[in-house]
Amino acid sequence: MAFSKQATNLSPLYLSAPAAVELVQSIGLKACLSGIADFIKADFLRWEDFDKSARVANHSFDGVIELMPIADDTTYSFKYVNGHPKNTAMGLPTVMAFGVMADVATGAPLFLSELTLTTALRTAATSALAAKVLARPGSCVMALIGNGAQSEFQALAFQHLLGIETVRLYDLDPKASAKLMANLSGSGLNLQICDSIAQAVKGADIVTTVTADKSCATIITADLIEPGMHINGVGGDCPGKTELSAGVLAASKVFVEYIPQSRVEGDIQQMPDDFEVTELWQVLKGHQPGREHVHQITVFDSVGFALEDFAALRFMYESACALGLGERLSLMPQMKDPKNLFGTLLKTGISSVIEKSERICAA
Amino acid sequence: MAFSKQATNLSPLYLSAPAAVELVQSIGLKACLSGIADFIKADFLRWEDFDKSARVANHSFDGVIELMPIADDTTYSFKYVNGHPKNTAMGLPTVMAFGVMADVATGAPLFLSELTLTTALRTAATSALAAKVLARPGSCVMALIGNGAQSEFQALAFQHLLGIETVRLYDLDPKASAKLMANLSGSGLNLQICDSIAQAVKGADIVTTVTADKSCATIITADLIEPGMHINGVGGDCPGKTELSAGVLAASKVFVEYIPQSRVEGDIQQMPDDFEVTELWQVLKGHQPGREHVHQITVFDSVGFALEDFAALRFMYESACALGLGERLSLMPQMKDPKNLFGTLLKTGISSVIEKSERICAA
Repeated sequence: MAFSKQATNLSPLYLSAPAAVELVQSIGLKACLSGIADFIKADFLRWEDFDKSARVANHSFDGVIELMPIADDTTYSFKYVNGHPKNTAMGLPTVMAFGVMADVATGAPLFLSELTLTTALRTAATSALAAKVLARPGSCVMALIGNGAQSEFQALAFQHLLGIETVRLYDLDPKASAKLMANLSGSGLNLQICDSIAQAVKGADIVTTVTADKSCATIITADLIEPGMHINGVGGDCPGKTELSAGVLAASKVFVEYIPQSRVEGDIQQMPDDFEVTELWQVLKGHQPGREHVHQITVFDSVGFALEDFAALRFMYESACALGLGERLSLMPQMKDPKNLFGTLLKTGISSVIEKSERICAA
Repeated sequence: MAFSKQATNLSPLYLSAPAAVELVQSIGLKACLSGIADFIKADFLRWEDFDKSARVANHSFDGVIELMPIADDTTYSFKYVNGHPKNTAMGLPTVMAFGVMADVATGAPLFLSELTLTTALRTAATSALAAKVLARPGSCVMALIGNGAQSEFQALAFQHLLGIETVRLYDLDPKASAKLMANLSGSGLNLQICDSIAQAVKGADIVTTVTADKSCATIITADLIEPGMHINGVGGDCPGKTELSAGVLAASKVFVEYIPQSRVEGDIQQMPDDFEVTELWQVLKGHQPGREHVHQITVFDSVGFALEDFAALRFMYESACALGLGERLSLMPQMKDPKNLFGTLLKTGISSVIEKSERICAA
C-alpha cells in the first residue's frame, strides 16, 4: 500500500453499493470472506499500533446512529452505521452503513465505500476468525438463531472458514428462514429448519445468534447450553440490546473485541464491571489462551469494532483498485493555491459573486 | 422540511465541491452568509433540543482528523474535517471537510456534501453572529490577522452582516495578504496591508485571528488590546493550538460555543477549569448578557461546533433542492425484501457467487 502517493489526489475513489456487489461477484464470496478475515487478523495482530476509541452513538427512540473512527500512523478510517430494528416493516434495511478511509499525513479522504454489504462480510469473517480459536476442533453443526439480512453470510463463513456442514435454522419469522433456505440451496450446506430455539441448539457445536430486537431479549438461556459449545453472539450490540442470559455468560469463558466498548454494548453489559473477559487479539497473538478444554463453554460476545471496518475497507479498496471498479468523486475543491479557497468562487468579477438573485435562496 | 418523505429514498443527494461553488454563485455569497447565519441562530436558539458531544479527534504528528456528530429528534448530521497546517507546502488545503445529514427515524443518509467551502462560510457566519451581540455598536474597523483560506469569508461576513468598512491585514506570508487584496478588490471594503500585528490591531473595533499553526502561538498579547475591543479568535481550535495570550483572556469577558469542547480545544485551554466563560446560545437567547459596556473587552473563543455544521448542511440541502443541484448516489443496496441482503449477490446460481477466479483477489 502506498497511500501517500494517492494523497495528492483530492478525489476519493467511490465504491457504490452496486459496484461492491460486482466486486464480490468478481472475486467470489468465499475468497472475499477469507481475504477479509486475513486482513482483520493481520490488523488484530498489530492491535497496539492503533489509536482506538469506543464508537460514538446517537440514540433515538427507534434506533441508533454510530460513528466508528480508528487510525494507525498512516491510515485513518471511520464507519457510519445505523441500527433500526423497525425499519424492515417499512421496507428498509435494519442496518445501513458506509465508510471512509483517509491519509493520516494529510487528512485527505482516499476512499468512500458502501459498507452495508461489507459489514455483513466483515462481521461473518470476524465471527469465523474467533470461532477458529474458540470452538471445539472438528465442529460441524451450527445453530443459527435469527435468519435476517446477516444470516447467510454467517452460514457461509462458517462453512468455508471453519468446516461447518450442517446449519439448524430458527427465526420468529418463518419467512426469514425460508428465504435463507432458498438463498443457500445448492451451497453444499445441510440446512434444517427447526421449530424452536431449543431444537436448533440441542447438540450443536456452535450457536450463532444474530437477532435484531432492540430490547433486553434472552434468546439463549443457561438450560439450553451444553458443555463444549461455542456461542457466537452477534446481535446484542448496543445498550439494552442483548441475546444471552446472565446465566449463560456466568457459565462461560467470554471473549470480546474491545473491552471499553463491549462493557457498554455487549451482552456483558448485564454483568458486573469486573466480570472477567479476554480480548480476542490477545488470543490471536498467543498472549492468552482461547478454549482451554473440550468441555469448556466459550462465548464470543461480538459487537463490531472499528478495526474490523478498517481492515474491510482496506480489502475493498485494494480489490477495487485491482479490478478497476469504482469512480472518482470531486468531494474536495481543486485549487492551484491551497490558500486561495475564495478564488474557487471567482468566475468573473467579485461583485457577481457577492450579490445574486437573492429571491431564489431556499432559506 | 419533510425529511421523513425522503427517507425511503436510499440514494442520498450528493453535492460535490464544484456543485457547491455553483450553489454559492447562484444564490450570491452575501445571501449565503446571511442565510447560514440565520439557520445557525435558529438552531442555537433551540440548543436544548440537541444531543450534543465534543468532537472525536484522532491526532497525529502533523495534524488531526475529527468527526463532529449531532442530532435532534428528527435529523442527524456529522462532519469529517482535518487540520494539517503543513499541507499548504504540498499544495493541499490545511482544512478539508465533508458531511452527511441523515434521518433519525430510519438512519438513512439523506445528503452527502462537500464541506470545505461550506465550513469557511459557516465559520464566518458564526463569527459575525457572535460579533453582533459582542462587538461595540457602530464597529467599522477590523484587524484580520492571518490571510489564508478562510480570511476573505471573514472579511465579507463582517462587511455584510456587521457593517465593517475597513479591514487591516497582516500575515507572516506577504503573498497571502496580496492574494486577499486581489480577491476582494472591488468588494467595497477599504483594505490596508500592515507591517505588524500591532499596527493592524491599533485602534481596531474588532480583531479577528485566523491563523493555522499547530503550536502554542501567541498572536495577540495583552499589551496590544484596548478597552472596548472585540476579539474574534478563530484559529485556535485544538489542543496545543492557541492564538491569544492568557493575559488577553484574563482581561476579557470570554464567550464560547460549547464549554465541554472549548475547555479542551479553545484558547481557554490555557486557563484553569473554573475560568468563567459564557456559551453564545445563552446570549442569543437572552439568558445571559453579551457585551455589558462600551469599554469591556470581549472574546469569542471560537473552535467550531457540530451544530454550526448541522445548520449549514440544512442550508446547503434546502438550497440544492430548490436549485436542482447535486446528484443521487447509490450508496445503499436497494432490496425488495430488506431482510434479503444476500439476494443482492445472486445473479445466477449460488455456486457462481461462492467461487470465482480467486487469483484476481487483491489480497
